[in-house]
Amino acid sequence: MVNNALPRPVQQLINEFSRLPGIGSKSAARLTFFLLRSGGQLALDLSVALQELKEKTRFCSICFNITEEEPCLICQDDTRDKRLLCVVEEPLDLLALERARAYSGQYHVLHGAISPIEGIGPEDLRIDELVKRVSEGDFDEIILATNPTLEGESTALYLKRRLADTGVRMTGLARGLSVGGDLEYTDEITLGRALDGRVDL
Amino acid sequence: MVNNALPRPVQQLINEFSRLPGIGSKSAARLTFFLLRSGGQLALDLSVALQELKEKTRFCSICFNITEEEPCLICQDDTRDKRLLCVVEEPLDLLALERARAYSGQYHVLHGAISPIEGIGPEDLRIDELVKRVSEGDFDEIILATNPTLEGESTALYLKRRLADTGVRMTGLARGLSVGGDLEYTDEITLGRALDGRVDL
Repeated sequence: MVNNALPRPVQQLINEFSRLPGIGSKSAARLTFFLLRSGGQLALDLSVALQELKEKTRFCSICFNITEEEPCLICQDDTRDKRLLCVVEEPLDLLALERARAYSGQYHVLHGAISPIEGIGPEDLRIDELVKRVSEGDFDEIILATNPTLEGESTALYLKRRLADTGVRMTGLARGLSVGGDLEYTDEITLGRALDGRVDL
Repeated sequence: MVNNALPRPVQQLINEFSRLPGIGSKSAARLTFFLLRSGGQLALDLSVALQELKEKTRFCSICFNITEEEPCLICQDDTRDKRLLCVVEEPLDLLALERARAYSGQYHVLHGAISPIEGIGPEDLRIDELVKRVSEGDFDEIILATNPTLEGESTALYLKRRLADTGVRMTGLARGLSVGGDLEYTDEITLGRALDGRVDL
């Protein structure tokens, strides 16, 4: 009876939505029926945007950020510091740094972190490209801004080894309390790092 | 800086996802970057499914459920009781009833409930079609299965008045405790309705 009740294109869209992270079959059905009710333009707009996502974007050949132009606007931007390089795992990390408006150097996007459990090795990431870029480039400092996770920190350590020969100074982002956070709710490891990294006032 | 960091097609897709209910800008960004990372087939599949949703589905001219065929498979099904009609607000409600496998009559989908606050009047729903269908049809019973909400119950009352002349018996779904639920956590109104509707054991 259930199959009778749901036309194939509706079921198909529910299935496709369900493949996205964080969207279960109930959310997928809700989204699908919302689109059905909402007239059609919304579904069509979303459809076109999805098509254009792959057609009109590529990876920048220098920093491997996602871009419409080649090279990307950040790599093109002559007002940015050319001697400072920040290595991040994902384009969203780059975006978070840009939003903070605290950095105006170059970027390098690895597209992941080394994770033996998930079968992701150095060769799956843009690490060879990074080593080549740093060796041939003229950088004063490389900020290894991988995530403060096991995978992120292992990746930073691996990069440190791989880039040691270049002699460029390497730094990492400070660990410590979140601004606006609460000491009481800060986890032990972060608190330990915040203590180790205490600064003079 | 933020605008530089995000190519237009990526921002566009984030915007489109954000228009969906329950998806904020952070979830939208996460979905978009998931699709970017996942190769492209997923985004394309979703795009096609969205297009086909409107192209290949319509409302059944009899019950106004969403269907690929005309009339829909439920209206076509000769094994179902033709003298029993269940009125629901949305196709998802119909689906829930079908999943329960406890009903095998006909359906009528209103596509909403009367809601003065949201500016939805009887003329916005498939009510005239329902009245015509019941007047011209040969039904023994009409189950008014609108939602147990203020809007749903008002709609049921309105339908009862509009359909009074047809002389067909009208019923509503029982209110009471959820099976597998807990008396302690049942709200007062439901508990009151469960008491009022108590049955002999």
